[in-house]
Formats: sequence, C-alpha cells, structure tokens
Amino acid sequence: MLAELKGLNEECGVFGIWGHPDAAKITYYGLHSLQHRGQEGAGIVVSNGGRLQVLKGEGLVTEVFNEGKIEKLHGKSAIGHVRYATAGGGGIENVQPFLFNSQNGSLALAHNGNIVNANALKHQLEAQGSIFQTSSDTEVLAHLIKRSGYLSLNDQLKNALTMLKGAYAFLLMTETEMMVALDPNGLRPLSIGQIGDAYCVASETCAFDIIGAEFVRDVMPGELIVIDDRGLHSEPFTLSTSSAICTMEYVYFSRPDSNIHGINVHTARKSMGKQLAMEAQIDADVVTGVPDSSISAAIGYAELAGIPYELGLIKNRYVGRTFIQPSQSLREQGVKMKLAPVRGVVEGKRVIMVDDSIVRGTTSRRIVTMLREAGAKEVHVCISSPPMKNPCFYGIDTSTHEELIASKHSVEEIREIIGADSLTFLSVEGMLKAIGRPQDGNQCGQCLACFTGNYPTEIYPDTVLPHEKELVR
Amino acid sequence: MLAELKGLNEECGVFGIWGHPDAAKITYYGLHSLQHRGQEGAGIVVSNGGRLQVLKGEGLVTEVFNEGKIEKLHGKSAIGHVRYATAGGGGIENVQPFLFNSQNGSLALAHNGNIVNANALKHQLEAQGSIFQTSSDTEVLAHLIKRSGYLSLNDQLKNALTMLKGAYAFLLMTETEMMVALDPNGLRPLSIGQIGDAYCVASETCAFDIIGAEFVRDVMPGELIVIDDRGLHSEPFTLSTSSAICTMEYVYFSRPDSNIHGINVHTARKSMGKQLAMEAQIDADVVTGVPDSSISAAIGYAELAGIPYELGLIKNRYVGRTFIQPSQSLREQGVKMKLAPVRGVVEGKRVIMVDDSIVRGTTSRRIVTMLREAGAKEVHVCISSPPMKNPCFYGIDTSTHEELIASKHSVEEIREIIGADSLTFLSVEGMLKAIGRPQDGNQCGQCLACFTGNYPTEIYPDTVLPHEKELVR
Amino acid sequence: MLAELKGLNEECGVFGIWGHPDAAKITYYGLHSLQHRGQEGAGIVVSNGGRLQVLKGEGLVTEVFNEGKIEKLHGKSAIGHVRYATAGGGGIENVQPFLFNSQNGSLALAHNGNIVNANALKHQLEAQGSIFQTSSDTEVLAHLIKRSGYLSLNDQLKNALTMLKGAYAFLLMTETEMMVALDPNGLRPLSIGQIGDAYCVASETCAFDIIGAEFVRDVMPGELIVIDDRGLHSEPFTLSTSSAICTMEYVYFSRPDSNIHGINVHTARKSMGKQLAMEAQIDADVVTGVPDSSISAAIGYAELAGIPYELGLIKNRYVGRTFIQPSQSLREQGVKMKLAPVRGVVEGKRVIMVDDSIVRGTTSRRIVTMLREAGAKEVHVCISSPPMKNPCFYGIDTSTHEELIASKHSVEEIREIIGADSLTFLSVEGMLKAIGRPQDGNQCGQCLACFTGNYPTEIYPDTVLPHEKELVR
Amino acid sequence: MLAELKGLNEECGVFGIWGHPDAAKITYYGLHSLQHRGQEGAGIVVSNGGRLQVLKGEGLVTEVFNEGKIEKLHGKSAIGHVRYATAGGGGIENVQPFLFNSQNGSLALAHNGNIVNANALKHQLEAQGSIFQTSSDTEVLAHLIKRSGYLSLNDQLKNALTMLKGAYAFLLMTETEMMVALDPNGLRPLSIGQIGDAYCVASETCAFDIIGAEFVRDVMPGELIVIDDRGLHSEPFTLSTSSAICTMEYVYFSRPDSNIHGINVHTARKSMGKQLAMEAQIDADVVTGVPDSSISAAIGYAELAGIPYELGLIKNRYVGRTFIQPSQSLREQGVKMKLAPVRGVVEGKRVIMVDDSIVRGTTSRRIVTMLREAGAKEVHVCISSPPMKNPCFYGIDTSTHEELIASKHSVEEIREIIGADSLTFLSVEGMLKAIGRPQDGNQCGQCLACFTGNYPTEIYPDTVLPHEKELVR
Repeated sequence: MLAELKGLNEECGVFGIWGHPDAAKITYYGLHSLQHRGQEGAGIVVSNGGRLQVLKGEGLVTEVFNEGKIEKLHGKSAIGHVRYATAGGGGIENVQPFLFNSQNGSLALAHNGNIVNANALKHQLEAQGSIFQTSSDTEVLAHLIKRSGYLSLNDQLKNALTMLKGAYAFLLMTETEMMVALDPNGLRPLSIGQIGDAYCVASETCAFDIIGAEFVRDVMPGELIVIDDRGLHSEPFTLSTSSAICTMEYVYFSRPDSNIHGINVHTARKSMGKQLAMEAQIDADVVTGVPDSSISAAIGYAELAGIPYELGLIKNRYVGRTFIQPSQSLREQGVKMKLAPVRGVVEGKRVIMVDDSIVRGTTSRRIVTMLREAGAKEVHVCISSPPMKNPCFYGIDTSTHEELIASKHSVEEIREIIGADSLTFLSVEGMLKAIGRPQDGNQCGQCLACFTGNYPTEIYPDTVLPHEKELVR
Repeated sequence: MLAELKGLNEECGVFGIWGHPDAAKITYYGLHSLQHRGQEGAGIVVSNGGRLQVLKGEGLVTEVFNEGKIEKLHGKSAIGHVRYATAGGGGIENVQPFLFNSQNGSLALAHNGNIVNANALKHQLEAQGSIFQTSSDTEVLAHLIKRSGYLSLNDQLKNALTMLKGAYAFLLMTETEMMVALDPNGLRPLSIGQIGDAYCVASETCAFDIIGAEFVRDVMPGELIVIDDRGLHSEPFTLSTSSAICTMEYVYFSRPDSNIHGINVHTARKSMGKQLAMEAQIDADVVTGVPDSSISAAIGYAELAGIPYELGLIKNRYVGRTFIQPSQSLREQGVKMKLAPVRGVVEGKRVIMVDDSIVRGTTSRRIVTMLREAGAKEVHVCISSPPMKNPCFYGIDTSTHEELIASKHSVEEIREIIGADSLTFLSVEGMLKAIGRPQDGNQCGQCLACFTGNYPTEIYPDTVLPHEKELVR
Repeated sequence: MLAELKGLNEECGVFGIWGHPDAAKITYYGLHSLQHRGQEGAGIVVSNGGRLQVLKGEGLVTEVFNEGKIEKLHGKSAIGHVRYATAGGGGIENVQPFLFNSQNGSLALAHNGNIVNANALKHQLEAQGSIFQTSSDTEVLAHLIKRSGYLSLNDQLKNALTMLKGAYAFLLMTETEMMVALDPNGLRPLSIGQIGDAYCVASETCAFDIIGAEFVRDVMPGELIVIDDRGLHSEPFTLSTSSAICTMEYVYFSRPDSNIHGINVHTARKSMGKQLAMEAQIDADVVTGVPDSSISAAIGYAELAGIPYELGLIKNRYVGRTFIQPSQSLREQGVKMKLAPVRGVVEGKRVIMVDDSIVRGTTSRRIVTMLREAGAKEVHVCISSPPMKNPCFYGIDTSTHEELIASKHSVEEIREIIGADSLTFLSVEGMLKAIGRPQDGNQCGQCLACFTGNYPTEIYPDTVLPHEKELVR
Repeated sequence: MLAELKGLNEECGVFGIWGHPDAAKITYYGLHSLQHRGQEGAGIVVSNGGRLQVLKGEGLVTEVFNEGKIEKLHGKSAIGHVRYATAGGGGIENVQPFLFNSQNGSLALAHNGNIVNANALKHQLEAQGSIFQTSSDTEVLAHLIKRSGYLSLNDQLKNALTMLKGAYAFLLMTETEMMVALDPNGLRPLSIGQIGDAYCVASETCAFDIIGAEFVRDVMPGELIVIDDRGLHSEPFTLSTSSAICTMEYVYFSRPDSNIHGINVHTARKSMGKQLAMEAQIDADVVTGVPDSSISAAIGYAELAGIPYELGLIKNRYVGRTFIQPSQSLREQGVKMKLAPVRGVVEGKRVIMVDDSIVRGTTSRRIVTMLREAGAKEVHVCISSPPMKNPCFYGIDTSTHEELIASKHSVEEIREIIGADSLTFLSVEGMLKAIGRPQDGNQCGQCLACFTGNYPTEIYPDTVLPHEKELVR
C-alpha cells in the first residue's frame, strides 16, 4: 500500500555503471526502476575520466531530470541514488550522491542503509577539525577516508569501512574507478550486472531487466569490489561476515520482478500468501489484497484457499505530494482519496483482507472500517508476515515511530483495535519456509530483528539520528 | 494499461454539487476520483449566489489545485471538469469549465462527449458575428443559448439542445441554478447522488463513494435536470430517446468501483474474463493481465480456467509526463520503463496474456515480445472485447488514428503481426451476456458502434475536429 | 519617479512591423523600449501569411519572452503590446494582443487608450448574443467588426470605428494585412517608421532608434493606415478631427529620447524646468530632481537659476514587484527602500525639489519629510506642470483615485499638507510655451483636460470601467 | 553604467545586526540597499540564541526573499550577504553566508574581499583531511578556525586571521556573538551603526540611512570587533596596519549616498568631475554622463565648465537577466537595448561624454559610435579616474580580463581605438585632491594599485581563483 499510509519507509536505492557511452541515461532508467525505494530526491554523478559532474534535486527521478539536463552529463561512468520521502526535513543538501571535490581530485558517494555508530564517529571527527556539510550518516565515510593519511584510496576505504557498524551498500566513484562495498551482514540487497562490456550495480535486479543488462551475481557480505577500465576486482575487506539480508525486502520493499539471492519476490510473496491460507483456515466468500504490495500474497491466498480473488480495494493512481487533506467534516463523510472499497464486490460478503504487515495499526483499522461501511458482512485480516515488534536501525524508517502496535499489544488486542472479525499473522517459520532460502545449519541468512529482536550487529544508545537541521527554504 | 500506450482516450469527466458549504473541496475530491478520465487539465467554477469564480489549469487535479487556492473558492455550489491528455495541442483556453461573463450574469459550462455537428453550427454562428474563444465543440452550446433571444435560460437551453447531435453530458451553472443535460442516446454515463441535503452529479458513481454521497439514480437519455435551492426538477427536452450507453465504459474506461446502470464495472470485467476463458479454451501454465485495466478480466479468466493467476507484467507507478524516452540504441537493448515482464514468473511457461482491447496492435506486439524475451515458452493473447473496427465520434480519441488494426486485418493476420501463439477476441454476444444488462426487446441499450459500425446518431463528413490551434507557450 | 508611488499610470504601448524576416525579435525589442508604458503583461502575435500565432504572459517583456520562445514565433509580420501594472485584478485573459480565430481566418488586436462608450456598446452586443472573453474595453472593436456583416474587413473596421468614442491607437493584423487606426483627436501618440523595406508602427519614436529604424511620420488623428505586401495605404475614416495629444506624454509618460510631433521629450522637459525657474524665482543652495522622470526638468531649473544641480535623492534600481513592505515599527525608523535622500548633499542646505506632477500629494509629503530628516534647512517644491484637477478618461489611471489633491485644495493648502516651505506649479501658459508646439489659431493641439477640465470628447456617466472580474488564480 | 557592459564587478556586500526584534527584516532592507554590490545571490542567517537558521538563494534580494520566508526567520540577530554576478559558474553552494553546523554549535560566515593566499592554505588543509564544500576562498577561514584546537572561538579566530593575506571584511556569527574583522589594510569599506540599542554593521553607510540607523564609526584596519548582549568590544588582532581603502569605491562602486571615511561619494565624484573639467579644458556644446555611475562626475564637469548638462544617453531600466541578445543581423541594424543615445539632444552638437573608467574599451567604443550615429559632431571622452593598468586581487573582478586596455596602450592609442575626438583621463593627483582625504605624511591612505601597480599586500602566483567547479543544474 502507500508508503505514507503504511509508515514503513525504505531509505534509498543505488545504481552505478562503469564503461558505457550512455552512462547517465542508463543510470536514469536504473534509478527510475528503483523509484519505489525513495521519492524524496534523486541524483546522478558522472565521470568522463576528468572532473566529476553532479546533477541532483528533490522529487522524483522524472521531476529532477529531463532530456536536456541528462544530455549535459557527459561521461562513460555514473553512480546514482534515490532517497526516501521523509515527512518534513530533508533538504537538497542531503540528496545523494555526495560529491567531494579537492585539489587532488573528486570523490562521489551513494549509500543505502544506516550507520549505527555514525554519531560517535562524527563527534571524533569534528573534534579533529572536520566540518560536516550534511546531517547524513553517509558523510562520515568520506571524512574517515580523507583522514586516513597518505594511503591509496583503496586502503583508505578499507580502513574506513572497518570503523563503520550497521547496514551499508556503498557506491563510490572517482575519476578513475568505481568502488562497491557491502556491510559484513549484507543487510541491504546489492547486485552486479553486465551490459555489453560494462558492469553495473543496483540495489535490485529489476534495474537490470529494465535496462537490458544480464544479472551476474549478488555482492557478498563484507565484500569490496573495484571496477575500472581493466575490469572488476573483488576482495573481502573483512573476514567476519554473516549473511543477514533484510526480510522485509521480500515481504514489502522490493519490486515483485526483482530477485533477491536468487528468489523472485512475487513468487516468495505468493508463497507467503499460500502458507498464510494454510495457517489461517478461514471460511469466507472473497479474498482481496491491499494494493499494491499485498496483491501477490492475496492471489496466493485465494489460489490455495479456493476462494475467489476480487478487487475489493481500489488505489487512486493520481495521488500526488500536494494532495489536499480532507478537513474533519469531510473526513466523517468518508472521503477516501487514496484507497477506496468496491461496494459492488464486498457488499454482503465475508471478506478476507490480505496485507503484508501492520505497523501502527491505524491504516488497518481504517481499511476494515471502509470495508464494513461498504457492506462487508465479515472482515478477516490476514497478514503475510509475523507481528513487527522491534524497531529497525538499518535504514528502515520504523525507528521514528514511538509505537509499533505489536510491541505493546497481543494479536487479540490488535484484532480488537482494528475492528476485524479475525486477525492472523504468518508465523516466522511459515514465512521462512515460504521464502525458501536454503538454510545454513540453523542460520536462515536473513535479518529477523523486527520480528524477533535479535539484531545482527551491535546497537548504540544514540543510534537514532538526531532531527535533521531545519533549514528555511 | 497506460493510456499513452493504448491510444484509446476518454474525453473527460464532470462533477457538480449544489448547496453544500464545502462545495469546492468536494468537487476537488470528486474530480480526483474521475482523474482516470482525463489528465490534461482540470477546473472548478464555484457560485456563492453572486459572481461565479473559476480556477483552472493544465495538469492533474493535484497539480492545478492546492489548499490555499481551494480555500479562496467560496460558495455553496460548484461544477468541475477533468480533461483528457492530448498528444500536443490543447492549451489552457480549452480547459473546462468555461465561464462566460456578461453584464446580465455568468454562465459556466462543463461537457463530456462530442458534438458531431459542431463545425456546421460554428460556421453559422460565426457568420452571424459570434466570436469563439476556444477550439472546443463545447463552446457552441453557449453561443446557441445566447442567440436564443429573450427567453428564460431554461427555454434557451432546451432550444439549443435540440440543435446538437452527438454525445453530451452537460453541466451548466449560473448564480442561481445548476442544469444537467444528457444526450438522447445517453451515450456517456452521468449519475445523480445526494450528500445531506445537497445534490451532486458525476460522470461515474465512484465519485459518490469517495465523498460519502449516496447514489440516487442515473440521468436518463434526453433528460434535463434543474437543481436549485428548491430542489431537483426533471423534464425531458426530447421524446425521441434510445439508450445507447458506451460499451467501452464497461470494458476499459470506467473505474472498477463504479456502477453503470446498476452494474459494477469490476464484476462485469471479471465476467467478461470468465466468458473469454469459456470461448478461448486454451491450455497454459499461467494467466497474466496487462495492468491496470485488464486485471479484473484476467482474474476472471484464471478463476474459470483453473490456471494460476500471476503478476507476469509490472507497471512502473512513477512514469511522469516528462519521462525521457530511450534513444534508439537503448531501445534495442530493451529498455522498458513503463511496463516490465517478470522473468521469475514467465520463464519457461505457457502464458495467457489477457488485455481488454487492441487498438493499433503496436503495444500488444511489444508486450508479446517482452514476454518471449523474458523466457515465455508460448504467449496466448486473449482480448476481453470484440475487434474494434470503427472509429468513435462520441468523445473517444480513436478518431485521430488512421489505423484501427482490426479494420484492415483478420484475427489471424493480427495474431501474426503481434507475434502471438494464439489470439482470441471475446464475441459480441459473449460480451453482452457477461455485462448482463437486461435486454429491451432486441435492443441491448449499449452503443456497439466501434465493434459493429452501427452508429446510434447521424454522422457528418466533417465530424472530426480540426487540429487545435497551435499556440506557442 | 516610481509609477506605484506616483499613482499615475499609462495604459499601454503598442508596436507592429510588417514584412521583416526578424519580425518577432524586432517586436520584442520594440516592446522592451516601451516597457515604461506598462509592466503588467506583454504579448506578441506573428503572422507568416497563414495561421497567426500568439505568445503572451503577465510580467515584463524580459520575463514573458525568452530566446527559445521567440524563435518559435515564425513570421514576417507581428504586432505586440505592453500592458500597465494595475494594483490587483488584471489576469492573463486581459493581456493583449487579443487573437480571435474563426473558420474564416484570424484577427489580432492591440490597443492603447480607452473607449469611453465601451460599456454601452457591450450591452448592445451582448443583447444580440455576443459573448465577451475579457473585461477589456478593447474587445468591443472585434465584436463590432464581426457584426458588420458581409463587408470587406476594411469597411467593417471603418464602420466599427465610427461607433467608438474616446482615445485609441489600434493595431490590427490578419494573415494578409496590418491596420493602424488613431482616434479623431489623436489623443495617444503613434508613429510610423521604416526599417529597410519594412514598415513599423510604435507608440513612441524611441522604439525606432532602438531597432535601427528611421522615423517616417506621426499617424494623423482619424487616420486609417493599411500595410500589406504592396506597401502602406492611408485614408481618413472620419473628417471630423481635432488634434488633442495628451500633454502628460510630454510631462511624464514618454521616454526622454522620444519625439512627439517633432518635439524631443527631454528637451521639452528641460524647457519646462527653465520656465518653472523663471516663474518661481526662489533663492536656494541646491536643486534636486525626483528620479527618474523629473531629472530633465530639474537640470533645466538649475541651469537657468544658476544653482548647483545635485543628486539629492537616490532611487534604488532593484525594487522588484515582490518587495517586502516595511511593517509599521520599521516605517517609523525611516525605511526608505525605493527612494532615499543623500544626507551628504542636502544637510544644512536650502533645497529646491523639482517634480513633474502631484497626484494625491502623499508621495510629495513623504519626500519632503525625508529631505528634512536628512538635514535640509528649507524644502521648496517646484512642479513642472499645472495642478491636476480632473480625472482622465483616455487611458491614464487617475480615474481610480477618489482624490486628486488639487481638485479639492488650493496651492497654499497643498503646500501645507506636503509640508514644504514653498510650492510652485508651472502655469498652463508657461507649460505650453516650454513645450513649444506651433499654435493653430487659438488651438494648442494638446489635451489639457486634467488641468482645465475641457475634455475633447463626450464623456459618459459609466465611462469608468467596472472593477475587473476577480479570478482566483 | 551597467556592470555587465563595464566588465568591472564588485565582489559583495555584507550586513549584520545584533539585538533587534526585527533582525531578519532589517537585514533584508540593509542587503537591498547594498544590492548594487552583487546581484548573483543573497542570503541571511539569523540567531535567536539557539540554532542558527539560514535562507539563501540565487538572484536579487527581492527574488530570494518574500514576506512569508522572512517571517520564518525568527531571531534578534542576523548577518547577510549579497554576491556579485559572475558570467557563469557560481551556484547556490557558493552563495553566502556560509553556515557550518557541528555537534558543538554553529558558525555563520559572510565575507567581502579576496584572500590572496587561499589556494595555498586550502592545499594544506586538505592534506590534513579537511573537505571543502565550496570553491570559495571564504571557506578557508572556517577550516582554519576549526583546526585551531581547544581555544576559545575568539582566540581561534585571531589565530586564523593571522594566516590570511589579502582583502577581507568578515562578519561571523554564533548562537551567542557576532564578530567583525577587517584586514590590516582596510581594503574594503566596513562601518558600524546603531539603531536603538542594537549595533549594526554594513559595507556602506547607505544601509544605515535606509533602515533609520545612526552612523557610529568606520571599522579600523586590523580590528576585531565582538558584539554580544553586553555590547560592543574592540581589539586589534594585529599591530601592523596601514590604511589602503580601495579608491574605486569612490570612483565607481559605492552608492552616491554612502560616505566612506567621512567623505560623501556623490560629492567626491562631482569634485572629480570638476577637477577633470579643469584638467581637460575642452570647448563643447553639451556635457553628458554615462548612466548611472558617471552622472555625478558629469554634473560636476558641466557646472565647472559652464556647459549645459544634458541627458544624452538613456538607460533602459527594465533590462533583466534573461534579456535576449540581438543576433548579428540585428546588431548591424543598430539594436540598442541597454543604452540609447538621445538624438534630439546630441544631433549636430559637440558632445563631452563623461565616464568613470575604461576597462576594456569596448563599451566606450560602442557609446562613441552610438553618439556619432545619433548625429554628434564631435565626441570628447573624459574619464574621471586615471588609466587602469593593473589587475585587482582584492575582490574586484578585473583579474579575469586578459586585457586592461590601458596596460597595453597609450592614451592616444586608446582614443583612436574608441574613436573619440579627444580622450582625457583624470590625473592621480587630481583624483586624490578631488576625493580630499587628509594625507598622512606622504601616505594617501588609499589603494591605488590598479592605477600605479603598488599593491599594499604580497601577491602570489596562484592568487587568481581556479575556475569554479562546473555544476550541471
């Protein structure tokens, strides 16, 4: 469903390509296919072997760039970034990639994830005289690199990475090379593709399909890859790795046409829906999904349960950022701008409403109410993931919510709050089975922290980023 | 699917409300729910009993209006309009509602449809000294009214309507009343709703659900309704009526949550999908629909055929108007921005691809090719409507296309052109049966002209609008 | 001084050219040189023998047009218009030239002046069915033309002109000719120039100097000139003419480098300053002018009186439309954004402050106060025109001011209100003598209505335009 | 005249105020009065004792700020900056004030002048790990301060200032204090004012008149002033000072209503004009000045010589940044957009054209040609300053011009190049005498480097700033 309704936001997507005459334009298409990972801002840095050029702005890829602007970005290599939509704050200075110019050359930087010890590192660096340009955790890496003295950039980067804790998929670019680094747990997805002789890198494989590239392989946890005109060179920057890919990428974030570690996202979701149907065993007339992210699970549910799948909820495709909120009097009249029930489908029916997750519960309650007002006789809510009880510190914006409903309430209490006739969550085991990644001993290779509270890295008291500086614009 | 890919465009939606303190805001929400009927421009005229105020602009409802602007539109009555996206042309002067001020008062006018004898009427009026402000056929009505001499507005309007031929759902508003008129064939949908004491009018019933209004009834062919502070008064302006509602409203244009003449659009589409499955009888592994308009039919097909329904095609939600087209070299690499196949779903499979119609065939060919490149073993194209052989003169933009592929090619030829393993169109009888409107003798009450060539009105040689004036902006 | 301070606004400038390959660009430069006559909006219509093209917008010439837009205006002929800055109201639909398209061809129209019987004509036309697009008096001409039946355009235009009363300098253009018409009193200036083989027309001769054209002659009162590919043809459309060029064009409106009826404006103003010095006979230390329009008169005054001319008042060149007004507390601290006294020049001095006119008196009072606060020992106000006692109905925006200070107060009372040590107005005779137009019998050939109350045309009760329709934008 | 014609650009103006409830608005007015010192960008930083807020943008003060934006800048203290218009380059990231946030507090920085050893300092700082955000020399000061270890900010700043060479008028602000520093030669003007209890600082005294403040005193060379809630505290940061105020501030840059070191600029210019008349002794009919900066000198010339002063050249006030340049063919027709001769004034006359300086000579040649084409019989060019033979390294943009015409040509050669009948430059002695600053021994207290080549500071080979980074926007 809509990110703003959901209260669950990804923090970015990255894309890079080295050695292609249409580097900027391909990056534009790559970023466009990753737009669901962030709508606040977008940027591209290109390299033609000399001076790096940057173009970025707030808004969607199609708003920031146009034909004329892209054509001015000359160069055979590029990295790009899409940034997620924060409620307020933000500001152009936090839009990535960051470009740092010095008299010795330039360094561009794009990041997906969250550095959990960024604040401590920032304190140290400022005490030594560094001046930060942004309120982003990402900038720490650039200062750590520059502080590493007279080493090669490769060694500076490896030194710097060993000081970071948390989740990161980094793309760096200079005049002569592109560097790709993934944290020791591989928390965020990152894959390598090839298009002709050029290598490309993307947060999701859907970017490769869109630009006509072939998938080569996923980047490994703790791996540093250097791409230059001689090709692709890989080396680990740490040996202490342990795979823990974010499970919510399968459940909610990634595009259905992406594959993560070899598993198609739509297929995984449909399996989760089937597994959920097996666990729920509810008697009903119709199954409906909350568009868009829950459609696959709902279809799976309907198929296994043998209950007709219907469009019981319609999402308006034209909701823009400047949408006018209904005032109280209209809200009570039932203004349903973003999501509307289909009376003709649900009236008089026992409805199974499949959604992928419950964060605060407010949206679920609203949808259940809508369905009842449209005449549904019963509303059974089935969630294709387990209760989300713990905040994420690795780049998903649940950390700003004071209340995850499942951290304070039992399933039965939640059912009552949202007003459903029944509420079923998929079990952790059922979810892992449905996704179907090969187990490595008793290691599932996935991060389950938001469900189980087992965080794969250390967590620090001030991990949460301070409120971003408020600029008047 | 995407209108711009489809080459099949509606020409507008209208909404009006009389006697509600939040008239402008409700019209905003009403228009927003009708946004799929037109994305080129939007406008609202409000009346507070005195001077009419207009606010309009090019673009989406959410682009044209914002909180501050809406709040300046004081008044308890309003009419609004959304206009469809033409390739070029257009211009702010053609965005409706039109507002005509004179020293005796104001008249606002919004129109969905197409007047087929507009050019002839325009010639006559200009010869008598009228100056037209727009290149729209709609303006003719205003001049006919003003030319009717010293009659009451009601009589002027009835006189004027008898001179029009074609399709029209008109909303008119003055300082003291709102008038609603539908052509003698009722070619375009138009319904009456009620919210508290206020009456509202909309092209589709989904608008009523969105604003919390109750559906009252559909406007009748040849009916003139006057709404003022005393209530709603109806009278026929002609007795020669014959219902011929546009069938493509069921097949493609209307929102799935709208009901047309009592029939839910999603349900009708799903039935069409089931009927198509019965007629097609194809052996395959997966069924997939072309998003968004064909999803309902595809689900119906899958359900009846007992073949799994899958997301075989993904539509990118972030395609904006300023999207950069891939250059030829990139196109050959297969850059797919708007619609992408899901390799993980279709690879190695026999795929049934359900779509609602074929206009030029180019899009179908492109999708079939995509699916094959993504590994589909077979691609069977099933269309949930009959071959579209004849242009529409009633407000649907097929009249600008030189070639309707089905007007010149047999089904087998089309199959070959689009590269499908098989191609099945729904039969006219199957379509009517699936929609399920009660027959009136041998009258189906629907316009089938695009399929059969039987036009419900006279058609004139110069019916097609001249190219709109090209303004430099 | 600044128009917005002055409360005295011109109502437009026109420019046209026929038969030059750079027609649009030359019109752009011509309008730019006439920008002082109107800053609210600007527009250009071009003709390439076929369809007319229009480009217009609100704001300055340099804001409305840019290189790309001008280059799309293909054609060898063009007319253009700049519109004066009203306080509010206005709106793009009132920006000229107006372009009226019909199935028989197009007609473009640009107007400087004011039709005093526009409202009566509008009533008649609306009663006959005409629909007006704007709230402008100018549009009346187009409807009168179109109503004239099956005559040639030339005859239609002559018929129409005979029905107009008031001030008008009209430029009209069709696909095949340009027409130029001046009212029977020649109230507004209008001149013909030549650049190569092409004829051009402008409100002021400064436009010819700017584009490198040669001045040919002034248009005569009651003259209709037709310019087409065969050349320039003139004929009177009335024989009852009597020259009454607006005197304020010499005093205030026109650019110093323009010549009106052969008399250079700067020279006329300097002569008025000299005449004023002769009439005033004041003993003082310095002479200063209120920039920009009074500089010439102040220099003349200083030269004749033998008193040093100094920059006692500085105008800030960067005052934009969006300038933030000082709040009350700052106003008292003396925020002087637009006009500032030069303390180093006026401190301890007896100052003669020359201005060209007093409308409401508020600005004069403010300037006198400023000068005193900056240390001036005495402030003597000398006005290079007679007291303005009567409203103008011919296109100058004094009609909207309820109070012309001189219509209700004696010179001594005004002196006291504005706080000056002395106040001298130039006499009517002195002004005429200084301007130096040849007298024709006892006819001066100038309109002196605002000074004397003798209007050269009939005046009607509803002459003043109604408030323009308030559009929400 | 117009800066862009002149090729002589100031590099900024600064304004600050401490302890006034309307701090942001007063700074807005202050900056507006300094707009002539820079039109590329403007910014304001406010302090309300807590977090500093910044608002800046490219363009004029009236374009960057509006009522709503200013009102969001809460605080009782503020500093602001206007930046000069470079040909290209620039970019929002170089618009000042700079605001550096760290976890220990914020530092804002505004600068007028040029640090001649900035590049060397930047090299050192980058080698130690500093990352620069801008291509500006100004940022060096912030890094030097941050590198000064655990000293008080006051001591950090004094340490840092001793490492800078060149011209600088700095305003710094933190949450608790404002600091003002002027280089040891006092090359750029900087003055202190008072408004109620609040102190303010400005590049020119005209800002004080505009906001109703009283002039207190000029800042001394080598002085560091700290303003906080306890008042104003001054201390020298160096004892090696030697006054060398930029002479071109008197000649060209400053506003006529400013006083520099007690001398009114208009009065100084008028004296220079008189001195020039004495030195030139030319027989002619009219004197005219090149607007705007040469008007004062021309008036002085005319007064002393007893020759009438006339408006021989008119400047169009509406030249915007987006002005369309005439193409070659139109240029040959003599299109004159920015500056036009007044034929009625110069025709048949012997004209003395007074200008303040000649940089490249191209503009002078163009004006002489214009005057001749408008009929001038003779054109005598009189320049109210000596030949400018040497580039400036202290913040005036002559360093980017490869050719100062006077560095390679004799006066007679220049006269021939510009096509004048005679050419007279004011002598250095005459200029100093006219300005009339008290001599200190044989020290005039002014920088004459551009005339004499005697630079008051060391100059370094790489003093000229590298081309600014080219950002695609």
